[in-house]
Amino acid sequence: MNNRSFSIEEQGLLESILLSRRDVRGNNFTNQALTEDSINKILHAASLAPSVGFSQPWEFVVIRDIAVKQQIAASFELENDNAKEAFSGERRRLYSSMKLEGIVEAPVNIAVFYQPPSEPVLGQNTMLEMGEYSVVCAVQNMWLMSRAMNIGLGWVSILDPNRVKDILNAPPANKLVAYLCLGYVEAFLDRPELETNKWQAKKSLGPAVHRESY
Amino acid sequence: MNNRSFSIEEQGLLESILLSRRDVRGNNFTNQALTEDSINKILHAASLAPSVGFSQPWEFVVIRDIAVKQQIAASFELENDNAKEAFSGERRRLYSSMKLEGIVEAPVNIAVFYQPPSEPVLGQNTMLEMGEYSVVCAVQNMWLMSRAMNIGLGWVSILDPNRVKDILNAPPANKLVAYLCLGYVEAFLDRPELETNKWQAKKSLGPAVHRESY
Repeated sequence: MNNRSFSIEEQGLLESILLSRRDVRGNNFTNQALTEDSINKILHAASLAPSVGFSQPWEFVVIRDIAVKQQIAASFELENDNAKEAFSGERRRLYSSMKLEGIVEAPVNIAVFYQPPSEPVLGQNTMLEMGEYSVVCAVQNMWLMSRAMNIGLGWVSILDPNRVKDILNAPPANKLVAYLCLGYVEAFLDRPELETNKWQAKKSLGPAVHRESY
Repeated sequence: MNNRSFSIEEQGLLESILLSRRDVRGNNFTNQALTEDSINKILHAASLAPSVGFSQPWEFVVIRDIAVKQQIAASFELENDNAKEAFSGERRRLYSSMKLEGIVEAPVNIAVFYQPPSEPVLGQNTMLEMGEYSVVCAVQNMWLMSRAMNIGLGWVSILDPNRVKDILNAPPANKLVAYLCLGYVEAFLDRPELETNKWQAKKSLGPAVHRESY
């Protein structure tokens, strides 16, 4: 199984999934329910991620309860009001016009935590962030598997992580890495919304690639 | 294109790529060259990753020069000698017996950096790590595309990031997120080496999944 060779067509399919993945917000989720089987497939994809020293340091809280979502959404509202202060004039107006999360609209939210190790981890000594980075790899696996299942996913980062931990009764040592909203969508947009509305242009790769050294 | 629907078979193919992905080390790379075209495909996959506020904060240094690799490998040797001190007895012996990187053996190394923003980034205010996390998503895209191209990739974290930055003449503000070794392989192992040699068991997902809250 693992030693199998993939074809050019199969590479092309992976590229198509990467290209089609979008950050989905509340103006695009439908209210079609997500089954437990779908959630389990997405969590299984997470568990196939690489992790430093095979530490598998991820934990998940699957949220369907509207009362929990509403508390999280209140943290978003507070932090988003602060966040828009960083922008002024036309950019502040554009910022304020955007729907940036789908906490309440998405049928399922998943909070993803990093659980720090109780013993030394192989490979996590000079670059301590490797544990968190492993959890991010798991999130990207979830995102791609969701897209392959025609399920939308949005990552909400405009939250107070300590407030989210309190709401979810998370162990003090755990770190919130990602807060995800999942559900079926009206449509997967052709391009990122922030590109279409000219908030941020697509960068060309050339200037970001150096040879041998900077 | 992006609104396309994927089939059950296509989901299965993605799962197969996730399952087949391995961390590849120097005991497994062949000396078959990697073409520029292959490297460009892998970098293109990186550029399709999600990024906070569409900031695309990734930079890459592609290394083929053996003299550069040898300097990086010397940093690994130094840090690995320190790292094994964290383990004792049988675990130290097992640690010392493992080949943990393929810096010199891999035909291509890619150092992946996070370039901090010069202006406020949408979504990167309460969770400042989101920029680095975006770069990690790009690395996971590279890993999966490499596997779909039947190319092995290993992530080396036992390095002094400041020493690597010096060797590569990186801008002081940039942060090393990942140091990757890429090449064709003798074989993709059925299971992670750290699982096979009983360094760390595969965890079952159940205890890591919570409902509504911890």
